[in-house]
Amino acid sequence: MTGKVAIIGAGLIGRAWSIVFARAGHTVCLYDSERGAVADALESIERTLPDLEQSNLLRGHTGAEVRTRMLSADNLDEAVTDVVHVQENVSERVEIKRALFAELDRLAPLEAVLASSTSAIPASEFTKTLAGRERCVVAHPVNPPHLVPLVELVPAPWTSERTIARSRKLMAAVGQSPITLKREVPGFVLNRLQGALLSEAFRLVEDEICDTADVDAAVAQGLGLRWSFMGPFETIDLNAPAGLADYCERFGPMYYEMAKSRAAPRPWSPDLVRRIESQRRERLTAEALPDRQEWRDRRLAATVAAKRRADYEIGP
Amino acid sequence: MTGKVAIIGAGLIGRAWSIVFARAGHTVCLYDSERGAVADALESIERTLPDLEQSNLLRGHTGAEVRTRMLSADNLDEAVTDVVHVQENVSERVEIKRALFAELDRLAPLEAVLASSTSAIPASEFTKTLAGRERCVVAHPVNPPHLVPLVELVPAPWTSERTIARSRKLMAAVGQSPITLKREVPGFVLNRLQGALLSEAFRLVEDEICDTADVDAAVAQGLGLRWSFMGPFETIDLNAPAGLADYCERFGPMYYEMAKSRAAPRPWSPDLVRRIESQRRERLTAEALPDRQEWRDRRLAATVAAKRRADYEIGP
Repeated sequence: MTGKVAIIGAGLIGRAWSIVFARAGHTVCLYDSERGAVADALESIERTLPDLEQSNLLRGHTGAEVRTRMLSADNLDEAVTDVVHVQENVSERVEIKRALFAELDRLAPLEAVLASSTSAIPASEFTKTLAGRERCVVAHPVNPPHLVPLVELVPAPWTSERTIARSRKLMAAVGQSPITLKREVPGFVLNRLQGALLSEAFRLVEDEICDTADVDAAVAQGLGLRWSFMGPFETIDLNAPAGLADYCERFGPMYYEMAKSRAAPRPWSPDLVRRIESQRRERLTAEALPDRQEWRDRRLAATVAAKRRADYEIGP
Repeated sequence: MTGKVAIIGAGLIGRAWSIVFARAGHTVCLYDSERGAVADALESIERTLPDLEQSNLLRGHTGAEVRTRMLSADNLDEAVTDVVHVQENVSERVEIKRALFAELDRLAPLEAVLASSTSAIPASEFTKTLAGRERCVVAHPVNPPHLVPLVELVPAPWTSERTIARSRKLMAAVGQSPITLKREVPGFVLNRLQGALLSEAFRLVEDEICDTADVDAAVAQGLGLRWSFMGPFETIDLNAPAGLADYCERFGPMYYEMAKSRAAPRPWSPDLVRRIESQRRERLTAEALPDRQEWRDRRLAATVAAKRRADYEIGP
């Protein structure tokens, strides 16, 4: 299955998705309602491809080969002609998505899945009235999806099993790691997990237990090393002699006490945000953010490449 | 500073600490109240050293060199003679630690720091009545500390600034990443962060949003990749155009809604633990746990080695 895929919205996420599908052999057609956005995107992709080729992240293809599979469209109709899959990446405003999905449902082949990259708006909020609403689904990636494989598939109540199955198959075929939510939930799974950890992180700084950098070190020099190749359940399963139930018996009460101590939810107050922002700015000036984002992407690429090697040499 | 270090308790954590200090040039003296435990520990360490040498995780020394720095003691007095630092790793029972720290305080040189590896018992519970209580501190590692650098330094109310400063210096000198808590808090920082994420993970399975393996994938194929080289604050700082405050303005309200939705703390019920345990056992039988633990340590070693390379080639 290497049919044509439409990428609607050519910002950072759309660009990364273009690489994901094109390096897996799909023809990709980019469209953006803003004039010049697709040309900018293709230029930016061209600058990225050599590094990816060198890091062996193009599935054995050259950057030039991958680039030839990327086309641009002048209008939505042209973009979705003959596609098997549409990946939408426009701004996170429900009325924009609602109008766009109405158009997509009218123009795209009946068989095509219509997927949204939204990180927070459930598909039920922008597909309810569509004739083809059963083929609409959220496929939420992690930024940037050409480096981070996770994709959350989140069905609306009317999304068909077939749509989920086809999306899951396509995402796996292009090398992503799809997970499937059984129903819509605010924040989906990824941001619920991230949010739980972030809330505790903000609380630790607010309560003056430790500073921002020490929280970051606790994760980057501690928890995150294991979590980069096994999840939280496998981690605790391997952290007690007789496995997960043994671990829960030993430490469940301690974790429950902690959970009770943070029961009162707290908003991130302007004062607290200012405090944390200022601790961050001591380590990284605002001017240095773009360079550091580039550093992050290079580190992510190195992390993913090393993980692939370890999957192969030691086992997944 | 490469003085003698005493390792009290020769289980998994004591063994790993022995490697940490010995590969950094310290003479290490192991003691365990159980007969034969130190001999077992040294044998197990000898089996581990060649792999570590090959993965370049012995700070440029050979396994044989590191091994020659490890001594065993027949009694506590001998173990702590002339030490600069004592690292305690006995069982997690407060009365055992209380008796042991009384002995250590009596026997160890006045200048030596007395550190406990406890993951959950604050030092105030087992050092209160000691003459040298200001030199006692928790130095909680992540298992196994010779692979995972994080160490949490947690002072009792009477731990001196000097003890914290000396511990921090020693830990940094031997290549660990110390963080310092400003005061005791249940679970310290690492397990509070882990606990926040675990609680949400258990909740997602209990509420049938997704299954155990999908939660694990959300972390191991998503969140954990970034968290293996930058913490949660740096992650969000780089995930909005104008940095952390910008991110909080965009997503703070969403995370606060999530926090409210999980406000009621839940114990991990026996039914839920059974369900998750059984999902884990479908993927990994109980018999396969020890092999998988070995796999974890090999993956951790590969992760740490790759991270060092990236620190050097791309920048930390």
